[in-house]
Amino acid sequence: MRANTVSIQTLRRLPLYLHYLKSIRSELPRISATVLAEALGFNDVQVRKDLGSVSGNGRPKKGYETDALIADLEKYLGCNSRTPAVLIGAGNLGRALLSYGGFSDYGLEIVAAFDASDAVVGTSAGGKTVMSMDRLGDTCERNSVRLGIITVPAAGAQNACDRLVGCGVKAIWNFAPTTLKVPCDVLVENENLASSLAVLSKHLTGSGE
Amino acid sequence: MRANTVSIQTLRRLPLYLHYLKSIRSELPRISATVLAEALGFNDVQVRKDLGSVSGNGRPKKGYETDALIADLEKYLGCNSRTPAVLIGAGNLGRALLSYGGFSDYGLEIVAAFDASDAVVGTSAGGKTVMSMDRLGDTCERNSVRLGIITVPAAGAQNACDRLVGCGVKAIWNFAPTTLKVPCDVLVENENLASSLAVLSKHLTGSGE
Repeated sequence: MRANTVSIQTLRRLPLYLHYLKSIRSELPRISATVLAEALGFNDVQVRKDLGSVSGNGRPKKGYETDALIADLEKYLGCNSRTPAVLIGAGNLGRALLSYGGFSDYGLEIVAAFDASDAVVGTSAGGKTVMSMDRLGDTCERNSVRLGIITVPAAGAQNACDRLVGCGVKAIWNFAPTTLKVPCDVLVENENLASSLAVLSKHLTGSGE
Repeated sequence: MRANTVSIQTLRRLPLYLHYLKSIRSELPRISATVLAEALGFNDVQVRKDLGSVSGNGRPKKGYETDALIADLEKYLGCNSRTPAVLIGAGNLGRALLSYGGFSDYGLEIVAAFDASDAVVGTSAGGKTVMSMDRLGDTCERNSVRLGIITVPAAGAQNACDRLVGCGVKAIWNFAPTTLKVPCDVLVENENLASSLAVLSKHLTGSGE
């Protein structure tokens, strides 16, 4: 049937479709790619292609049944399966992510948080007790963790990354402002909030101050 | 002298250089583009070019004085100037960002938080009292706010965006999983955490489950 390989760009758009569809499901039992494209500001042809790659439920002129499309997207994105993850670095940002409830919609469950600092170990964050790094290995093994979230300062990020990789983690969500070296079967997704901020600030100073 | 137009890609890398340099400034009084490139996993030539676009202090064979390079980067990125911002949407993510201390390193100061829900208005988040939307206009005016942060659900994001634009905001940091329509002089930087998560999860399910 459909190939399991959609592009990274398509993959990044799928949660946006899903989120929007869930917000309008009670009002619109059916939706066309054109309407969806218009609502999200995307290109019509692109939306049609994106949806076609994850759902076979679209019908010419009639579009998609909203609920069926939501179900297809959720299935493709693994929203109903559970992805256990660990987080290293329980500072401000780490605590913020631990407290953020929105990730569970996408199946992510942060099962434990770790920190290298004795002052932080034992404190509570997002309903979890922060553990010391020497418990990382058995926690990952017990929970079959293959996703790690890094929210330590840049200087400690490679070490945290190496520890995670050593524990069998295959995907790393890196919030530390640095580049990580990993084996080729490990995927790193960098989240550089400071980079976004730099782009915004520069736009402001460049636009007439 | 140097042109004020570096590419968006260069701009995104500058905070990474800055963050790293600050972490090693006490150990390395001088640093070469090669060493910096190696540390961050970037291309040598690219780093040389990036640094050259914001600093005239590099010397052949000797590299950069670390402190001088830090100062040039901070100046270019406006770290020492203050960028007042408002945040709309004091849910989990909004509260997380309000509590996150790291943005002040880049000059960002969230001066006020707003929410459309009466249940949230008046509560405290990150040391600030959440205000009702009808106070947005005078707050923006009084603080010369030109940066807005949107952390409302997707369905309310365009409305929040329109309100910000109506108050003179020229740059929007959008954490809502939707695309915003703005006038051409307004820059939107989208932060789609769910999209990153989709890429990571798909890597895991694609790698042998």
